[in-house]
Amino acid sequence: MYKAISKVRRQMLKKNFDAILVSSVPNITYLAGFSSFSKDEREAYLLITQNQNYILTDGRYSEAVKSKIKNFKLIEISSKLTFEKALKDLAKKHSPRGEAGKIKQVGFEHHDITVAEHKKFSSVFKTIKHFDIDNFRAIKSNQEILAIEKACKLGDETFKYILKKIKLGVSEKELAFEIEFFIKKAGGDISFPPIVAFGKNSAIPHHKPTENTKLRTQNIVLLDFGVKLNDYCSDMTRTVFFGSANAEYKKIYRTVLAAQKRAIEFLSSTFHSLPLHEKQIKASQVDKVARTYILEKGFPTIPHSLGHGVGLEVHESPRLSPKSKDRLKPGGVFTIEPGIYIPGFGGVRIEDVVVIENSGLPRRPLRREASKVGPRLLTKSTKEIIEI
Amino acid sequence: MYKAISKVRRQMLKKNFDAILVSSVPNITYLAGFSSFSKDEREAYLLITQNQNYILTDGRYSEAVKSKIKNFKLIEISSKLTFEKALKDLAKKHSPRGEAGKIKQVGFEHHDITVAEHKKFSSVFKTIKHFDIDNFRAIKSNQEILAIEKACKLGDETFKYILKKIKLGVSEKELAFEIEFFIKKAGGDISFPPIVAFGKNSAIPHHKPTENTKLRTQNIVLLDFGVKLNDYCSDMTRTVFFGSANAEYKKIYRTVLAAQKRAIEFLSSTFHSLPLHEKQIKASQVDKVARTYILEKGFPTIPHSLGHGVGLEVHESPRLSPKSKDRLKPGGVFTIEPGIYIPGFGGVRIEDVVVIENSGLPRRPLRREASKVGPRLLTKSTKEIIEI
Repeated sequence: MYKAISKVRRQMLKKNFDAILVSSVPNITYLAGFSSFSKDEREAYLLITQNQNYILTDGRYSEAVKSKIKNFKLIEISSKLTFEKALKDLAKKHSPRGEAGKIKQVGFEHHDITVAEHKKFSSVFKTIKHFDIDNFRAIKSNQEILAIEKACKLGDETFKYILKKIKLGVSEKELAFEIEFFIKKAGGDISFPPIVAFGKNSAIPHHKPTENTKLRTQNIVLLDFGVKLNDYCSDMTRTVFFGSANAEYKKIYRTVLAAQKRAIEFLSSTFHSLPLHEKQIKASQVDKVARTYILEKGFPTIPHSLGHGVGLEVHESPRLSPKSKDRLKPGGVFTIEPGIYIPGFGGVRIEDVVVIENSGLPRRPLRREASKVGPRLLTKSTKEIIEI
Repeated sequence: MYKAISKVRRQMLKKNFDAILVSSVPNITYLAGFSSFSKDEREAYLLITQNQNYILTDGRYSEAVKSKIKNFKLIEISSKLTFEKALKDLAKKHSPRGEAGKIKQVGFEHHDITVAEHKKFSSVFKTIKHFDIDNFRAIKSNQEILAIEKACKLGDETFKYILKKIKLGVSEKELAFEIEFFIKKAGGDISFPPIVAFGKNSAIPHHKPTENTKLRTQNIVLLDFGVKLNDYCSDMTRTVFFGSANAEYKKIYRTVLAAQKRAIEFLSSTFHSLPLHEKQIKASQVDKVARTYILEKGFPTIPHSLGHGVGLEVHESPRLSPKSKDRLKPGGVFTIEPGIYIPGFGGVRIEDVVVIENSGLPRRPLRREASKVGPRLLTKSTKEIIEI
């Protein structure tokens, strides 16, 4: 996170920001390494200037902040010192007689700050303007990749465990619960509420598991779940068959799998062929490879994007969709998750997390060769057709 | 929820809003009765006009929305039809030649809409202005009170269960985990991550349970947790003693309990004495009763507010704090949770959910008598000193 702050400061200098106000919990975690704040209520802000980092939060968190965050100065908020007043004081403090130190232009996160907050801050700082932090997070450090890899590994273990729980009469909700239970027992958390869909329900991409849907023979079982471990997320989907898979299911399954394979191969061949300093691919191109393949086979288009970045959030940049303007680069970690959904029949989705292996990974000194830069799967569960 | 929409429409007429755009998940749940949307990503909006309700969401939810929400027209968002475009179309549709039907002034939730969204919508509608929906939720219907009562009941059962799990060497995290799993096994969800604090940790009002803190003899055990059941929340805190409670603990415990009792008695006597159509109390006055009592007994002031509303959200209006401008009225449901925290020693907090019994509860036809309006506890766990 020290590196992350340096990167942010360079960008601040370049774009003439005297300070930035960080409000979103993932970006507070990214820059301060502290992830305890609630996402439902505003409990903290960071204010980062060129020479000082402040964290503003209330008494509930001050002990934890003091012991865990060394490079931030704590400003304790109370009924007497509101966020607004504290920020006003800081703006003043950084405005000595000389013009040089004045906080004039302050960056804020326009996807996170509400209109009501914006109104308050407009009276505190001279100019406030959007400053994008999310984009820094699209390129992961080796340490971050390792953290995601660990979360993916626990995801794979969860899948292995849950296969044993797929039994006649079990409900979708019970399986979702078992997934959560296994992950939490292992010291992790879920990165989103697990999706468990049986039979026709698997045709709904984001089906909410119900108590009433019990597993019957000849049912499709779609499992989409993620782990959060040491603040980093995983995400994976596997679809299995309870009974003896029929021809239609197999055809759909193989088409989805082939679409995923083609997308990954496209990543691989394109990255390998690009020169070392020009390694980037339009995310929309990868989406197109899988989407076109599925359409060509006569199935309906994927009703969602092909994939999304994974990191401190389970959905983050880059976005792999037809209209995405994002580019995939070394250090990018994202899902590839094609799906075919037939209303009244069911659906198949296969989702893995892929990293574009960064050149210069310390564990792999040879990676600097241009030909070695390419995708690597972080989720490793089998994609053979499974019949239970 | 039909009633809720009628109330909102009356307010729209009164304040000259042609439509309101509802974005926060609790308010979507309140008005449409559908609670599946994620709080982390913007997945839906409601647009409510005087004669039509629209719900805008994508293909992931369309099946569920169609089957569950009868009085809303679904507008399915896709890569071709973005939220922005869909809203533009609706604004046009409601602008026939005659001026009467035009959507000019649109209400939005300024505590929920981000600056980036606001920018988009400013180009879609002529005027957009804050419209408060949260306040409607501060007065609960009988059906809502019943739902909260059920959540509180499961909370009481959870407390009974967890008492059996308080054993030498158990960790805070294990107990928090047991609370969560008991609630989930019973078909509920947690309304917030449970707080379990042993010994000195109980002096931190919002302590995060750790793996490393194991229960030792002569430890205070503070348990603060809530249930979410059928979208409605509960919230309760009990503090018990592992070992033989010493005099200092008992003195603190009894002071906190007496402070809570006084606040509830104040509610009771004040409401009973007010005429039927003037039944309201300043929330700050109730806070003052408990706060003053604790100070008078020589203890430090409560470092948080005395209470908060509970409903679709575990923290909502009204707020019972020294600076609150909220008023408590019949139909209000909120916590009363005084606490004393002594750094290095530990803390005691006792929290219950209280409803100001609405006159005219159908189950209680006699409630219309002014003297019968008053507070009733929805959490019923014992508040005797417990030694384990």
